[in-house]
Amino acid sequence: MNFNKATKDLNLKSNERLFLKNRSPFAPKNFKDLKPKGFKIFTFNSGFKKKNDDLLIIVFDKKINIACKYSLTTTPSAPIIWDKKNNQGECKALIVNSGNANAHTGKEGLKNIDIYVNKLAKFLNCSSKDILVSSTGVIGEQLNPKLICKKIKLLSLSKEKKLVDAARSIWTTDTFVKTSVHNLKLDNQNIKIYGFAKGSGMINPNMGTMLAYIFIDCEIKKNKLKKLLSDNLDDTFNSISVDSDTSTSDTLVVFSNPLKKINIQKNYHKISAGLKEVMKELSMKIITDGEGIKKLIKVRILEAKNKNQAKNIAFSIVNSPLLKTAIAGEDANWGRVIMAIGKTQEKINQEKIMIKFGEILLTKNGNKKSNLSIAKVDRYMKNKIIEIEVSLGLGNVSKVVYGNDLNNEYIRINADYRS
Amino acid sequence: MNFNKATKDLNLKSNERLFLKNRSPFAPKNFKDLKPKGFKIFTFNSGFKKKNDDLLIIVFDKKINIACKYSLTTTPSAPIIWDKKNNQGECKALIVNSGNANAHTGKEGLKNIDIYVNKLAKFLNCSSKDILVSSTGVIGEQLNPKLICKKIKLLSLSKEKKLVDAARSIWTTDTFVKTSVHNLKLDNQNIKIYGFAKGSGMINPNMGTMLAYIFIDCEIKKNKLKKLLSDNLDDTFNSISVDSDTSTSDTLVVFSNPLKKINIQKNYHKISAGLKEVMKELSMKIITDGEGIKKLIKVRILEAKNKNQAKNIAFSIVNSPLLKTAIAGEDANWGRVIMAIGKTQEKINQEKIMIKFGEILLTKNGNKKSNLSIAKVDRYMKNKIIEIEVSLGLGNVSKVVYGNDLNNEYIRINADYRS
Repeated sequence: MNFNKATKDLNLKSNERLFLKNRSPFAPKNFKDLKPKGFKIFTFNSGFKKKNDDLLIIVFDKKINIACKYSLTTTPSAPIIWDKKNNQGECKALIVNSGNANAHTGKEGLKNIDIYVNKLAKFLNCSSKDILVSSTGVIGEQLNPKLICKKIKLLSLSKEKKLVDAARSIWTTDTFVKTSVHNLKLDNQNIKIYGFAKGSGMINPNMGTMLAYIFIDCEIKKNKLKKLLSDNLDDTFNSISVDSDTSTSDTLVVFSNPLKKINIQKNYHKISAGLKEVMKELSMKIITDGEGIKKLIKVRILEAKNKNQAKNIAFSIVNSPLLKTAIAGEDANWGRVIMAIGKTQEKINQEKIMIKFGEILLTKNGNKKSNLSIAKVDRYMKNKIIEIEVSLGLGNVSKVVYGNDLNNEYIRINADYRS
Repeated sequence: MNFNKATKDLNLKSNERLFLKNRSPFAPKNFKDLKPKGFKIFTFNSGFKKKNDDLLIIVFDKKINIACKYSLTTTPSAPIIWDKKNNQGECKALIVNSGNANAHTGKEGLKNIDIYVNKLAKFLNCSSKDILVSSTGVIGEQLNPKLICKKIKLLSLSKEKKLVDAARSIWTTDTFVKTSVHNLKLDNQNIKIYGFAKGSGMINPNMGTMLAYIFIDCEIKKNKLKKLLSDNLDDTFNSISVDSDTSTSDTLVVFSNPLKKINIQKNYHKISAGLKEVMKELSMKIITDGEGIKKLIKVRILEAKNKNQAKNIAFSIVNSPLLKTAIAGEDANWGRVIMAIGKTQEKINQEKIMIKFGEILLTKNGNKKSNLSIAKVDRYMKNKIIEIEVSLGLGNVSKVVYGNDLNNEYIRINADYRS
């Protein structure tokens, strides 16, 4: 995905103006929206948050195939434990709340899910195993299931909402709506792939960082759906890191919304490419709304020996507090890139390292480029997007990852998150 | 070591008042000092820094045994490469400069060391292999060896300095002097163990984080000296982390200063305990001067299955940007401890985790303690030292590590380090 394309502007909606003060400078001026076919979106303010919607319920016309990826954390939230235990790769409805992560809440946390899931299963006349749940927000507080049950009762009376409303209802510290819509022409049919996601702290790649839900408007079998998701994870959601902290709640779901039938085998690569566009756009929207972001950091590793080495070094650079802070201060402190390479303990050849900030070569042959114009680098550091390219000269593997700067705003957001 | 003992106060010296404004709240009011026997300390302002001394030369009366630990980085500074290549475990003199790390400076960086080492070797009439070098400061800039050579010429005319002067001459962003003096009575002789160190950013444990030099006033063979150093590393310098960033220049040296002869075999444990006191005090002084520190974070892991698990979880907690920021904001966000445990991917049993802040139990049996008084926890968070105890209920291994809060001051220091 072209980054500029992902942040391309439309017009600012009135209810978004509220967030303007602390809004990410990367916020797109408008959002991709649609009213989906094949399922209905409902959102409510149920009381987990003081104001704004905090509950999303999606009801599919019929049971459909899904594929999921969850956080690799070993302290998963109750919804992740519940989904993994119950879900069989099919889904009739999705319930997501924000404002309470229902994480580290023990058996009671799981029982509370049973209560609201059973309520919805009864209402929809489906098995509770066909309902998927996610929660995001504060860790360690019991979730009151009655708040959700009350809204389930109102479903038949409620107005259908659109994709943007769904995206907004699952926010925590997000400052802009994260949606993506992509159109494909397959077997002479128009197929939409679209989705929405939320960030924006506790983000470090370990499978489906954050919450993200993506819909493909054609029938796909479970195992193919799983493969489509796995194939595209590394270059999208697993290539971003806000703060190196992995959430207890990260969930990524792809839904096969069986509006159309097409030949999946024949069109696999096109579908996969379309899905990747949507995954990439959503993951870029998450990183460009990373808590407190003023600068987007793009790290490209070239000529690594293998995939692991490329990834370790890339994330060591993009997660280094010292480098992130230097970039916030517009200081071209490339020595901190050298430090971050070394701290991985990856075997490298220091003499072969080449580092560029943008188009400016800073070091090669083991020391600083002799005629380096610091004034030129200083000018470059004023950019909103800082591109760091590190060539290791060891092999032919490359990797791109994205992070953000570390500044006072990140500290402000996280020093008083609960108050 | 008792932490309070390590930060115990004497009287503030006049030239330290200058630093009061941005000084760590943990700064001791005075410093342990002495004029050593067996070697001479010289310090100079040589031009690497605009003001204050930035060059330390120590000359031993005779060649002595030493043991060294260096950063595990794979992008080591020129002094580390040089020392490892040349030094044979014996030392006649030590040269340390601050203000330029001579790191990522390639062959030229090594040649520059040759120039000033050869100058001193000639002056002292010793082999260049018996001279040890360290540098700390900005990475990636060539070091001008002439600045050091000029001062070597002045050695015979220069006044001997004391331990505190040595400590001060190697500062980068340090805000207080880090010295330690410990007295032992062995075989009816008084043996001193003492040393000095500098921090205070790019600090993450991976052998000899930072620069530290420790002297034991008795004759010890090389292999025993090595063992003494290795035995005490884990619980001292390898138990602190300011920012999870590992320096290119970390160096820790223990010198056997052969003033006295004692039975080392018989007194090994006493010497080891004395050395540990000094190593602990110096490492605590480094962490309590961690860049921008307002709060000291002590994390104690109990009942881990094994050493690696205890260490991984302890450092994941103490390095978590979200937890460090919450503590800066005096927010008892213990959910972020749960997150930091999970992100290690260590296999744990969530139901068995017990977390205490100070004496206050926050969670057991997999969820929040039912009658938890948040007001009480909030009061606790106002303390200058925050103790987090995590009991895993899996085995009998424990581990204590220290870190500091992440606040605006850390960002201020590092956003404009070079300017």
